[in-house]
Amino acid sequence: MMAPPLEGSSDALWPDFPQGPLSACRARASFSYKELQLFLEGEDILRFKKTIYSALERDPLFAHSSSEADLSLEKYRELTFLRCKRIFEHGFFSIKDMWQNPLRVLALIHCLGMYDWSLSTKCLLHLLVFASSVFSSGSERHLKYIEKIYNMEMFGCFALTELSHGSNTKAMRTTAHYDPATEEFIIHSPDFEAAKCWVGNMGKTATHAVVFAQLYTPGGQCHGLHPFLVQIRDLKTLLPMPGVMVGDMGKKLGQNGLDNGFALFHQVRIPRQNLLNRTGDVTPEGTYITPFKDVRQRLGASLGSLSMGRICIIGISAVNLKLAVSIALRFSAARCQFGPTDDEEIPVLEYPLQQWRLLPYLAATYALDHFSKLLFMDVIGLQHDLLKGDRSARQAELGREIHALASAGKPLASWIAQQGIQECREACGGHGYLAMNRLGELRNDNDPNCTYEGDNNVLLQQTSNYLLGLLERRLQEGARFSSPLKTVDFLEAYPAVLSEKFMGSSVPNWLDPAAPLAAYKWLVCYLLRESHQRFSQEKRSGGSDFEARNNSQVYCCRSLALAFVELSVVQRFQEHTHGPGVPPSLRAVLGRLSALYALWSLNQHTALLYRGGYISGEQAGREMEKAILALCAQLKDDAVALVDVIAPPDFILDSPIGRADGELYKNLWTAILQQSGVLERAAWWQEFTANKPTVSKL
Amino acid sequence: MMAPPLEGSSDALWPDFPQGPLSACRARASFSYKELQLFLEGEDILRFKKTIYSALERDPLFAHSSSEADLSLEKYRELTFLRCKRIFEHGFFSIKDMWQNPLRVLALIHCLGMYDWSLSTKCLLHLLVFASSVFSSGSERHLKYIEKIYNMEMFGCFALTELSHGSNTKAMRTTAHYDPATEEFIIHSPDFEAAKCWVGNMGKTATHAVVFAQLYTPGGQCHGLHPFLVQIRDLKTLLPMPGVMVGDMGKKLGQNGLDNGFALFHQVRIPRQNLLNRTGDVTPEGTYITPFKDVRQRLGASLGSLSMGRICIIGISAVNLKLAVSIALRFSAARCQFGPTDDEEIPVLEYPLQQWRLLPYLAATYALDHFSKLLFMDVIGLQHDLLKGDRSARQAELGREIHALASAGKPLASWIAQQGIQECREACGGHGYLAMNRLGELRNDNDPNCTYEGDNNVLLQQTSNYLLGLLERRLQEGARFSSPLKTVDFLEAYPAVLSEKFMGSSVPNWLDPAAPLAAYKWLVCYLLRESHQRFSQEKRSGGSDFEARNNSQVYCCRSLALAFVELSVVQRFQEHTHGPGVPPSLRAVLGRLSALYALWSLNQHTALLYRGGYISGEQAGREMEKAILALCAQLKDDAVALVDVIAPPDFILDSPIGRADGELYKNLWTAILQQSGVLERAAWWQEFTANKPTVSKL
Repeated sequence: MMAPPLEGSSDALWPDFPQGPLSACRARASFSYKELQLFLEGEDILRFKKTIYSALERDPLFAHSSSEADLSLEKYRELTFLRCKRIFEHGFFSIKDMWQNPLRVLALIHCLGMYDWSLSTKCLLHLLVFASSVFSSGSERHLKYIEKIYNMEMFGCFALTELSHGSNTKAMRTTAHYDPATEEFIIHSPDFEAAKCWVGNMGKTATHAVVFAQLYTPGGQCHGLHPFLVQIRDLKTLLPMPGVMVGDMGKKLGQNGLDNGFALFHQVRIPRQNLLNRTGDVTPEGTYITPFKDVRQRLGASLGSLSMGRICIIGISAVNLKLAVSIALRFSAARCQFGPTDDEEIPVLEYPLQQWRLLPYLAATYALDHFSKLLFMDVIGLQHDLLKGDRSARQAELGREIHALASAGKPLASWIAQQGIQECREACGGHGYLAMNRLGELRNDNDPNCTYEGDNNVLLQQTSNYLLGLLERRLQEGARFSSPLKTVDFLEAYPAVLSEKFMGSSVPNWLDPAAPLAAYKWLVCYLLRESHQRFSQEKRSGGSDFEARNNSQVYCCRSLALAFVELSVVQRFQEHTHGPGVPPSLRAVLGRLSALYALWSLNQHTALLYRGGYISGEQAGREMEKAILALCAQLKDDAVALVDVIAPPDFILDSPIGRADGELYKNLWTAILQQSGVLERAAWWQEFTANKPTVSKL
Repeated sequence: MMAPPLEGSSDALWPDFPQGPLSACRARASFSYKELQLFLEGEDILRFKKTIYSALERDPLFAHSSSEADLSLEKYRELTFLRCKRIFEHGFFSIKDMWQNPLRVLALIHCLGMYDWSLSTKCLLHLLVFASSVFSSGSERHLKYIEKIYNMEMFGCFALTELSHGSNTKAMRTTAHYDPATEEFIIHSPDFEAAKCWVGNMGKTATHAVVFAQLYTPGGQCHGLHPFLVQIRDLKTLLPMPGVMVGDMGKKLGQNGLDNGFALFHQVRIPRQNLLNRTGDVTPEGTYITPFKDVRQRLGASLGSLSMGRICIIGISAVNLKLAVSIALRFSAARCQFGPTDDEEIPVLEYPLQQWRLLPYLAATYALDHFSKLLFMDVIGLQHDLLKGDRSARQAELGREIHALASAGKPLASWIAQQGIQECREACGGHGYLAMNRLGELRNDNDPNCTYEGDNNVLLQQTSNYLLGLLERRLQEGARFSSPLKTVDFLEAYPAVLSEKFMGSSVPNWLDPAAPLAAYKWLVCYLLRESHQRFSQEKRSGGSDFEARNNSQVYCCRSLALAFVELSVVQRFQEHTHGPGVPPSLRAVLGRLSALYALWSLNQHTALLYRGGYISGEQAGREMEKAILALCAQLKDDAVALVDVIAPPDFILDSPIGRADGELYKNLWTAILQQSGVLERAAWWQEFTANKPTVSKL
């Protein structure tokens, strides 16, 4: 086996894990975790991550304390703000990186999120979401804000959602009337239902907001939703600007270090220049102008930037899975319960049931992480080309394809993460229910990924609409199924695909990498046909497009979108793990991960595979299950090493039962005893001994 | 339609809901919610619940405040303790009720839980778990504790779990050595891994614990795990007793008003009489004696009391579903988003997708609530007969059957609740993520139901072991499949059942109440055969019983246990909703609820129905889905009225978006503005304006 580079260098990237309960597991692994880490991430990113982790661990502002669990909302937000400032001082982030090494930006978001999502989101919303919406929606006249953003002279937020409108963005009711007399826009909320709400950073800290409002020109014509840069708080006092009522939404289920807020605008005047004018502008006299002629191309292009948020969430979900499976698998390898005799207990990871509960999520973590990185690079490429002025039809088509993948990938990843974290919580039993072990925080912090940047179920419709639109164009105009990333090209053969069948009947047949791919392709074709038929039936029986669309979601379009993106994830991960660049010593373990994710994911659709005749007979289904269990059994000895590849240092993971040394009970017991007042009687003990209740006194 | 009784009486049980956004929905309902409530609960329980709700609402100690969200652990525990005392003073609970009207006891637990599970659990652990384990495990010499328990002179907890052992109870390591010289037991924890932990009430408040320890008589013989009554804190000072190290586990994911604790015992001496001696005793001289001769009968009898906790959790899970679906369905009926035209928005409940996400959980709520009540009455009957001295073989058989139902019913109910709450959270979008709307609290408070009283996956093995044991007895001894509650009797015909097929092909075929029942019976037979075959194969290929059992859980025994209990829930709810006692005006809606739960639940198993040949062809599966969607569409106009039946008063539900008036935005907006400091700038605002970060300073 090739010795991994960097071994033994003085600033070794990799710790040698201490001897302990997990040493035996590590010794049984089929591969070197260091080699896999290097293969997946590359040395530059590994070093960058190490720099960030070390900086946080060295800095007392980031120290964990036992009182952390009991921080008030106000204190937690203060701490998060101070940490956010400190991150700026560290200068981990530069605008240049966004162009030259965007994966570093992603790595920074992930490292901070591994530490605390409130902090990561707070930085991300200001530096990426706010800043990039100013630049990508604005023009040269807005470049002056760059420095103010980077030195935190101003602090920003992105205000789209209103109290009564989220998914239906077109129906937002905040208005911006242009007044040519003063060359100002008048931002106004007609009533409290139009209050901007849920805006991250708006609750306590933002001085500026990108506010989406319906643009009206003199004479009363409405030009639709446009973004405006609105100052909401004074830069010196942080008091609200005149006419702005701004406040905090209050406690959320998670991410409470982040201050989500609301704002009501009462005839707030802002300069004409504060319209972020990339897609439309108003002349000083009050005439609306737009550089775009072809609405369809403009839409396709702008979808790319919508996709960015969703793609980030795919990666964030994968990070949450990394943390959760790391905790649960180290716990499972150290926790013993029952055994072949009363005297001998074995680690719970030795039970096939526990393997089946956890290892598929480990495989999903690797698959989704890879998918999110590829898609991120795709969208970065798209944006670069757009900024260079590429407005070709291919660019628009690429924008639509990425949008379709992102709009289903985000639901898929956020749901798998949510379910996976819950499974990890349960797999750690009572100890998983202790806050300090962090699985609750992960579940609560991951949860909004299912909602923001578009409700998961609503987003899936964008993907199925894309696929149905392609089918419609094929049927109407004879257009080919073809897309820049080639994710839809297989549909060209859909009538032939639909007549295919799975001819195998054994575990090895299912373990052939071609088997789940072929099954998924059949499944997507099947669901595309089902969805189209359902939609057409609804139309024929007199439904409007609106009704027909609504009535073909459940069991059809919704499943179609999920199956399509699952296929993409499976395919991309399989290409990655079976490519020529994979070191020979890693091929076995990566192949198993890829096969497990593919079959476990496909197994949810077995009913359709039977129903549509793709598989038949008892054997086919039973052997698929056996293949999944065989893969779990093969991977269980690699599980701890696979976790070592993806887990951050103990300081960052911050979970006594998930520490790398596997000293489960010592770490847990010590952490319990370090809590403040743990052995003290309650301050209110006299309430117990005095004032005994008189039963039925009342 | 029959006018419901009690209408118009001065202390009307039922509020008339205010006019508002939900009035139109209520007017469309096919039935009177008051009539259904009376049919399901009876007047006595309805009045009792109203008494409890009103008492809480009138009492300032139970008032909600905007600072509630930010209570420290210490303050929340104090408040919960004070409220617990107040509940004692109200005297809602009497020992007599446990005998004469046990459904009132259940109603009390549920009403308190609807208000706050920390409070309910705290009361329940002391009054039911601690008290009844003293009495049911003890003997006459322990009756003296009754009064002390009821006037809170002592406060109790139940200590079984240890830091390193939960599921494997036999492996607990705390010891109790008998010393005849002083007629005392010496309770001892060999090391910190044997610390009792997770014990509710132990953290701050309990003075006494029922401690499970390995009983040793002089000479060193171990007689296994026995319960001992151990004083852990001084009654006056609440300081630990000598030799006891007792403390608090710290913050949990939920139920933080309850103080879960740990204890280490260092040679703690307790009187001989403190052995709870129902199943085994030690004479003053040190001889171990037991009244039981037949270990199997003793086990069967004691299973009944183990079942009680699990059955309570089924009911508790149903209560959590009641709260969650009430919030989400009222929200969905009031929240409008998109519509057939840009100008007209419709309630999200009008979308088939939203109906499909929520209405099956509404149906599951009704079905599980009914199942838990029936099973609760079954186990109460069993306990009464045992206390009367009935130790017949039938009693033991009934104990085993109830145990099997409870051991799978608890996993089923707690998982459906956990998934249902998550779906409700997501269905309310961002507003569902706001803590004040309570869906997060419900998810966090329900979560431990998946773990305590036995980990869900481990418990399921008890049920499959029961069924496989019956099959084994049938194959070996020709014993009949027959049980006191008749839940297994259909298995007698299992070879014939296995050759049955679903002959229908249309929605009406699936809507026939006999269809899902027949399918479920086939499914249980199929999974029983699969499980038995897998187990036998594993044995034949040389596995031990231990290995064979472990290797036949996934896809076999685990699925068998779930399918078996789902069948029982479906069957019992169907009998209830189709019985002759159902008022004619309620039959339609109840029939739909029953059918929806049955088909939705069965639909998870479609792959097996196809694989085993019970259904075939595309039509059968597609029509099952259509039947589910048709039921959702039929039920959506009844949804708000069905919620009115199960939702507690607004004060108890305590969710702005779930209030009965449906004034979603007004209620939410008001609640947001009532939070302390909502419009104030942060106390630490100067941190923003001063000390600007110097980028890359570090």
